[in-house]
Amino acid sequence: MKVTRIDQVAVVVHDLEAAVEHYARMYGIAPAYREVLDEAGIEEAMFDLNGVWLQLIAPTTPESVVADFLATSGPGLHHLGFGVESMDGALAHVRANGGVLREPAPRQGGGGHLVAFVEPDPVTGVLVELVQDEGRAG
Amino acid sequence: MKVTRIDQVAVVVHDLEAAVEHYARMYGIAPAYREVLDEAGIEEAMFDLNGVWLQLIAPTTPESVVADFLATSGPGLHHLGFGVESMDGALAHVRANGGVLREPAPRQGGGGHLVAFVEPDPVTGVLVELVQDEGRAG
Repeated sequence: MKVTRIDQVAVVVHDLEAAVEHYARMYGIAPAYREVLDEAGIEEAMFDLNGVWLQLIAPTTPESVVADFLATSGPGLHHLGFGVESMDGALAHVRANGGVLREPAPRQGGGGHLVAFVEPDPVTGVLVELVQDEGRAG
Repeated sequence: MKVTRIDQVAVVVHDLEAAVEHYARMYGIAPAYREVLDEAGIEEAMFDLNGVWLQLIAPTTPESVVADFLATSGPGLHHLGFGVESMDGALAHVRANGGVLREPAPRQGGGGHLVAFVEPDPVTGVLVELVQDEGRAG
């Protein structure tokens, strides 16, 4: 298993519109697309920065998967996405090396690609989203 | 001013060796280079992931610039680096739009490139490092 690229950097915010306006005004960038993920209770704005996604995430309900993060930490950097060639191989490798997966199996994430989250480890503290290369837009 | 690429994603850790070993074992990646920045009281390990840097930062002294972050938040995602064509133009634009710069002028960062930090804004909560394109390794 070898990660060869950063797929995305995700930022959680309270207000998606305000954050999109902030990036437009301050940094001159606009989202390539937006989407709503009802099951997770979030909406996303995806910026394509030279093939790497900057992902803004905001809650759409109080039960959103990002509600706890916002309540505890406020807006900020949330997770890092790594591209992997084979999700099955990556998950087996992560499990064999003591990594803790958030869910028992990979699922369809934003953009329709297969994803799986690895819980923050004590050394780096980073929540990692593995993203299968095949079928990935951008 | 238009940001066109993510230059780097930075993770602050207590123990650089342990973090490098973690990424090697779990994700099969190794740093392209390491360096010590004495003035900031940090050491860094830089992973080149398809042209984007994953940067691990650890303190080398209790007065390190990352000591407060570690004491408050523990290890984790620390800042996001945006590439800019012109540092002078970018700083003028950021200032004109209410951005708060950490230092009065840009300086030489890791790898010898010109950098400047923009303090976290209330909407996104993200510390941003602007990195001038010219002279940037990788």
